[in-house]
Amino acid sequence: MKAAIFEEPKKLVVKEVDKPTIQKPTDAIIRIVRACVCGSDLWWYRGISKRPTGSLTGHEAIGVVEEVGSSVTHVKPGDFVIAPFTHGCGHCAACLAGFDGNCLNQEPGMNAGYQAEYLRFTGADWALVKIPGQPSDYTDEQLNDLLTLSDVMATGFHAAKSAEVKQGDTVAVIGDGAVGLCAVIGAKLLGAKRIILLSHHEDRAKLGQAFGATDIVTERGDEATKHVLDLTAGAGVDAVMECVGATSAIEQSGQIARPGAIVGRVGVPQTEPKSNQMFFKNIGLRGGIASVTTYDKDLLLDAVLKGEIHPGKVFTKRFDLDHIQDAYAAMDQRTAIKSLVIVADK
Amino acid sequence: MKAAIFEEPKKLVVKEVDKPTIQKPTDAIIRIVRACVCGSDLWWYRGISKRPTGSLTGHEAIGVVEEVGSSVTHVKPGDFVIAPFTHGCGHCAACLAGFDGNCLNQEPGMNAGYQAEYLRFTGADWALVKIPGQPSDYTDEQLNDLLTLSDVMATGFHAAKSAEVKQGDTVAVIGDGAVGLCAVIGAKLLGAKRIILLSHHEDRAKLGQAFGATDIVTERGDEATKHVLDLTAGAGVDAVMECVGATSAIEQSGQIARPGAIVGRVGVPQTEPKSNQMFFKNIGLRGGIASVTTYDKDLLLDAVLKGEIHPGKVFTKRFDLDHIQDAYAAMDQRTAIKSLVIVADK
Repeated sequence: MKAAIFEEPKKLVVKEVDKPTIQKPTDAIIRIVRACVCGSDLWWYRGISKRPTGSLTGHEAIGVVEEVGSSVTHVKPGDFVIAPFTHGCGHCAACLAGFDGNCLNQEPGMNAGYQAEYLRFTGADWALVKIPGQPSDYTDEQLNDLLTLSDVMATGFHAAKSAEVKQGDTVAVIGDGAVGLCAVIGAKLLGAKRIILLSHHEDRAKLGQAFGATDIVTERGDEATKHVLDLTAGAGVDAVMECVGATSAIEQSGQIARPGAIVGRVGVPQTEPKSNQMFFKNIGLRGGIASVTTYDKDLLLDAVLKGEIHPGKVFTKRFDLDHIQDAYAAMDQRTAIKSLVIVADK
Repeated sequence: MKAAIFEEPKKLVVKEVDKPTIQKPTDAIIRIVRACVCGSDLWWYRGISKRPTGSLTGHEAIGVVEEVGSSVTHVKPGDFVIAPFTHGCGHCAACLAGFDGNCLNQEPGMNAGYQAEYLRFTGADWALVKIPGQPSDYTDEQLNDLLTLSDVMATGFHAAKSAEVKQGDTVAVIGDGAVGLCAVIGAKLLGAKRIILLSHHEDRAKLGQAFGATDIVTERGDEATKHVLDLTAGAGVDAVMECVGATSAIEQSGQIARPGAIVGRVGVPQTEPKSNQMFFKNIGLRGGIASVTTYDKDLLLDAVLKGEIHPGKVFTKRFDLDHIQDAYAAMDQRTAIKSLVIVADK
């Protein structure tokens, strides 16, 4: 089968490799239909973090189950599924508490290889999310919406959930990447009345507004902080969604939040932020890996199937698997908000 | 009037000073009946943090209103009140959100001078909490319980509220000082089923058990972490109350919490803790200055008046105002869990 493989920073190739096989009773083999590129992959793409040469890439996909291990009963061959980047067991303390992204039983290092014709998906029984019907029953736009439920939409929603966004809240979203834009959708789903998006790119701000942002703050740094405080009569917002991960963004979150607010953070942090300034304002710092399966099953899949949300609009460029290098380059050069990768006909 | 005054590290004196007067329409003058010493005062008592020579001390008291400014309508002369260390206005964005400890309208630096015969209390209209009847209607034990509602009981409760302790939770409390012991009470009030107290002192552990602790962990550092994890089948607790403020305690909180848990912290932090380890377990870090008036009015005063909680048991030594130096020394030398200061007959 064909699979995307990391060679060195800024260089991916597509090679023929062995098709994966069931190795554990909890595995499933999935024929991938659509995959995509994640902003978090840019850390290793750019050589800032390490990745082994020759490793398979990608952690977001939708596809059709081809084979399941003996203990997998919730999905069966032929089922159309979301393949989350998380692999919750559904019954450990973390999964039961709604944090399947931190499942205590997950196999380490198994969230890769989704940019390929076939994927061995570990912990398949509970983690996979069944989509009604078959890929061919959906439009391209609907498939794009469904694909976001493997990571980016759930991650944006996790920012909003972690920040405990409530009905009527005034909130801010830091970051206008695909995750930040999905956080806007997430905040709206939870009832936020006013959604301030910090965005430096006109096309992304526009999409943010289509998703529900009511105010766009285009300044950076202290000027942006001042603008958000001005918009909230100096008090700060009720909740912040931090979707960048830069230390400056995390620290800015504390500055634009009102006392008692929570910063929901999903940007993978690079260095240690200072958090004590938050203590003196009673501001919480919360977040991490999204509860993909929990959120999909609870409400996100339903919202997509009913056409209430259209997170697939974050895919502004499409590529086939053979052009995986171009898909990463488009994200790296910011010519795409998020790159869609067509692996097979639907 | 007599007032306790800071001279230099490890030295307080009681001197005659001018009785305070109403200076703003929002002030009240309170005749103090009981005051006490806070663990957070040990930072400047020990010379670790700075405090101006000649400054009045103390930020916890109960007493009787003697005079009010023209805009104070919720309390009147003769009312018996809790004088919180916080001064919420009751109508700013922070107070309305339930975070009156971070009131946006409070006058800076006015939470001192409670260890004196009279106190000028700023922002008196909403912040003061009226107690039914007069001091003479209560037993010494009841007065002690009421006195804790000016800070320590509300602060312990804030740890539990910040950690979002829920019915049936298994929780841990780090710190067996008066605040940690009140956090045990707070966790129990919120329905925690199992309360693990990390305590190194037999007398404090015993009081913790009387307050509701079900398990005592006496080890320190990694051994304590291991013990807590063992008690929770390796998963970690549903909520942590961090009542120390040391960086090691905050970081340990993240290690003993299960994925998705929140660390409610009320220990005043001394250096910047690392928080990114918490990100990778989806653990929240939240807390700060307690919402004293909010909590007292919501439920703590009621719980004390009904005799449901007895936080006044944290006062294990009593002193009169003239012996304020001994009251601090007892806390410094850990011969008292918390020092009660009798200012006037009840």
